[in-house]
Amino acid sequence: MTIAPEEDRRLNAQIAFAVEIDKLKRIIRRNHLIDGSRRENTAEHSWYVGTLAMVLGEHAPPGTDLQRVVAMLLVHDLVEIDAGDTFIYDPVEVAAQADVERAAAERIFGLLPAEQGAELRALWDEFEERKTPEARFAKALDRFAPILANHHTEGGTWPLFKVRASQVREKVRIIEEGSPTLGRYALELVELSVARGHLAE
Amino acid sequence: MTIAPEEDRRLNAQIAFAVEIDKLKRIIRRNHLIDGSRRENTAEHSWYVGTLAMVLGEHAPPGTDLQRVVAMLLVHDLVEIDAGDTFIYDPVEVAAQADVERAAAERIFGLLPAEQGAELRALWDEFEERKTPEARFAKALDRFAPILANHHTEGGTWPLFKVRASQVREKVRIIEEGSPTLGRYALELVELSVARGHLAE
Ligand SMILES: [Ca+2]
Repeated sequence: MTIAPEEDRRLNAQIAFAVEIDKLKRIIRRNHLIDGSRRENTAEHSWYVGTLAMVLGEHAPPGTDLQRVVAMLLVHDLVEIDAGDTFIYDPVEVAAQADVERAAAERIFGLLPAEQGAELRALWDEFEERKTPEARFAKALDRFAPILANHHTEGGTWPLFKVRASQVREKVRIIEEGSPTLGRYALELVELSVARGHLAE
Repeated sequence: MTIAPEEDRRLNAQIAFAVEIDKLKRIIRRNHLIDGSRRENTAEHSWYVGTLAMVLGEHAPPGTDLQRVVAMLLVHDLVEIDAGDTFIYDPVEVAAQADVERAAAERIFGLLPAEQGAELRALWDEFEERKTPEARFAKALDRFAPILANHHTEGGTWPLFKVRASQVREKVRIIEEGSPTLGRYALELVELSVARGHLAE
């Protein structure tokens, strides 16, 4: 079988991207696994929230394109290969991160054939801007997962990083914007965690 | 906001499933990361091949439903939560595994609301049967990823587990069935690894 040179060129670029994104498995987040055994890496986190989109999709607003949500979640944290994980409860860290992440997106999506890189980059931009129902639901799941994990690990990162209930309730508002049902459920978990003494007021 | 009891019942089942599948992050495969630093877990592997489906999708036969391939790959290894990882070059291990994996599928997909569990279970069955273009392409990516990683880690699991080139070439045939282009590329990697002394004839 012979391959056209153009197909070969595209494939080589895609393989370079594939080799590069393997590094996401080495990016360690603050969050713990649900069994509390260790901190989570960003690759397995991306799998988790992508799969949650399939499982919890019915709690997105009617008409939400769930396959787009899945695709968005699979690539939403690729920039962390260069930029590292940002702790969402640290406002200084969050502000400094935006430029670094944009540069990372340029470089990493730039490894792909141009129009394909632009397509995946557009998914990332959409996720960050949170204007479409798809992006809002994706972001909701991204915020929901750590609350679920913390709730199951006696507060997890909350006591560890001195996060207070009022801060978590703000994050719950972001979940509500993507899915009222998941927002309501997350708030229940937060209040339960407060009641159990795993999250300080 | 009030939630209908039926929606609540469904959500509780979905959350139980979500908590359960977090365990996939603890299942350790034989394969190494592309930087050789450690062995891979099945959750991050699932993210990796799901994302590869988006990136390498144009090398699937025309008309392949790539979003179905992504969904299939996200759930294709959930049974390993009960059954563990199977080393594909150990025929005894492979044969013993089938029953254990079926029981695992019953239990794990059975945590979901019935029709939803059946839908995800159907994705897993389809992947295992390898009869549709979607399943064949998904399986091709599942076989392609470790070859890419081994090629980048001086043979990786091949010398470690005394795997020979003839055995790897058989796996390449499975890649070819899902994607002739990726099969041809994988074969090039295999022959290069042989030439470099990282894979024994
Ligand atoms: Ca697999």
